[in-house]
Amino acid sequence: MSLKVVDEHFFEGPEKKLEIVFKSSMGLLSYDRAFWEELVSLASAQILSSIESENCQAYLLSESSLFVWDDRIMLITCGTTELIKAADFLISKFGKSSMSEIFFERKNEYQPTLQKSSALDDMKSLAANLDGECVRYGRQDDHHVYVFDKFFNESDSESKIKTLELLMYGLKGEFNDAFYFKNNKEELVLKNLREVFPGFKMDTFFFEPEGFSFNAIKDKQYATIHVTPQGSENYLSLEVDRVSREEGERIVEKMVSLLRPVSFDTMFFSPDDHEELNIFENTYLPKQICKSETASGYKVVYKHFYNQEMVRLEPVKI
Amino acid sequence: MSLKVVDEHFFEGPEKKLEIVFKSSMGLLSYDRAFWEELVSLASAQILSSIESENCQAYLLSESSLFVWDDRIMLITCGTTELIKAADFLISKFGKSSMSEIFFERKNEYQPTLQKSSALDDMKSLAANLDGECVRYGRQDDHHVYVFDKFFNESDSESKIKTLELLMYGLKGEFNDAFYFKNNKEELVLKNLREVFPGFKMDTFFFEPEGFSFNAIKDKQYATIHVTPQGSENYLSLEVDRVSREEGERIVEKMVSLLRPVSFDTMFFSPDDHEELNIFENTYLPKQICKSETASGYKVVYKHFYNQEMVRLEPVKI
Repeated sequence: MSLKVVDEHFFEGPEKKLEIVFKSSMGLLSYDRAFWEELVSLASAQILSSIESENCQAYLLSESSLFVWDDRIMLITCGTTELIKAADFLISKFGKSSMSEIFFERKNEYQPTLQKSSALDDMKSLAANLDGECVRYGRQDDHHVYVFDKFFNESDSESKIKTLELLMYGLKGEFNDAFYFKNNKEELVLKNLREVFPGFKMDTFFFEPEGFSFNAIKDKQYATIHVTPQGSENYLSLEVDRVSREEGERIVEKMVSLLRPVSFDTMFFSPDDHEELNIFENTYLPKQICKSETASGYKVVYKHFYNQEMVRLEPVKI
Repeated sequence: MSLKVVDEHFFEGPEKKLEIVFKSSMGLLSYDRAFWEELVSLASAQILSSIESENCQAYLLSESSLFVWDDRIMLITCGTTELIKAADFLISKFGKSSMSEIFFERKNEYQPTLQKSSALDDMKSLAANLDGECVRYGRQDDHHVYVFDKFFNESDSESKIKTLELLMYGLKGEFNDAFYFKNNKEELVLKNLREVFPGFKMDTFFFEPEGFSFNAIKDKQYATIHVTPQGSENYLSLEVDRVSREEGERIVEKMVSLLRPVSFDTMFFSPDDHEELNIFENTYLPKQICKSETASGYKVVYKHFYNQEMVRLEPVKI
């Protein structure tokens, strides 16, 4: 669709995410940058910069991030990118027989009708191609996440790890303003992120006139943050793996305190039990919770929190 | 788009609404039924039945309702109907110069990407055609309503009246089950609606296998209710004019008590002041409020309420 909202600063922050785990090492770290450039270009994104550790390459993109391990790829894109095209390319390139698991996720978009394909389109396409399972966590008229999951075979690699996703909607305050390029608050941002992720190698990008991306790696651990600070439909996402529930709660409380969102969602993936984040019981009310299990055995807890204080809004001209 | 959710019982309850007030009587009550059949067919709906009073004709449609006065038309349609096409037809047929005001509204849909045109499409098209104003009440990532409004000239007809819209999401309990045809609970439904709207002439339709529509008129007053009872994305809308705020509160409290929705929105239109419905302060929390004024001077209060009890959901397979 070619529609344009009168608010020309609108940008769709909420992301799509693809993760492919291979059965064994595919030597992906030895692929050259041109290969990854081609991959992300299929989703209409470009590589801006990269950092690497012995085990992981982390690329900052024009729309979000790509992480590569020898036996695993994780690609996150936002805006109106078509991540499904990159997924199709990878499935075709490497073949299902090489794969342990494919995971594809779409968060509820602010303006789903401006997307090039709907979440339902993507889910249907993956289900037809891979015979996997599609589910939605959360009510359709409230925050929700679509998840496609296909488990083929156990992976040779290490046992499963805990992962936190944090999605924050309706940010405000000084820390949100710091994500405007003109405000020149890079040091404030970095100081806080060093506190959230101590000891990580960091790669940051301040977009002009506004917007922020962050990749961080430490040994095998990764973290990534993406911020769309402008307008009433602003947004921050954070994802980090190899965290305990307690560590996840600490990170969420820190980020929520900095940005005082209207609402936020958490997803916590654990190989063992359903682990429910319990936070902010006085300020933020848990509105909906959904517990699920992936085909590969991950226990997932999706939880949506809403600030109890009523939001007083002006009508938005469109 | 040709997508189909695996849940084949999904039906998009949340409506589009068109209201045209003419500068003076157009003798619309003398138009024959074929004219109205043609009108609603443009939106892909059909007339099922009708009732009338001296001042008003009320048609029950396959997707919602049409009300006709000599100087006014109100057409409400749900599902994947294209109300914008009926709007274009009426504007072309009667001409802007005959009109006092055009009002077009779209509630946030459960599955906006399954619609034939997006709310933004419709708003853009009306704005281009009529040079009116489009606004959104409510956050884009939460419940919201799009409103287009164009005021041309004062109408000769009576002074403005108060109108209530009630939109309920996530219904449950015995009264919701009564909207399934097989449950044969017509009397339970009618008994309760007679209490809500005493003295009205009523027209009802129980759809098979489920769904319910209701038109009611009394003198110049109208009321209409539409229910999509099935699935987790079920929905009820109610609209009634010529009600005081206190009467509106009574109606909302009765309907909410019957159906215990997860959440509900109210819109209250008043010619005088912004009138805010204050209800259910212990059970339902007001989450967002938006006060606005139409070009013709109506004061509008949009308010969204959410049940404070956390919703525990199973993942929904799609």
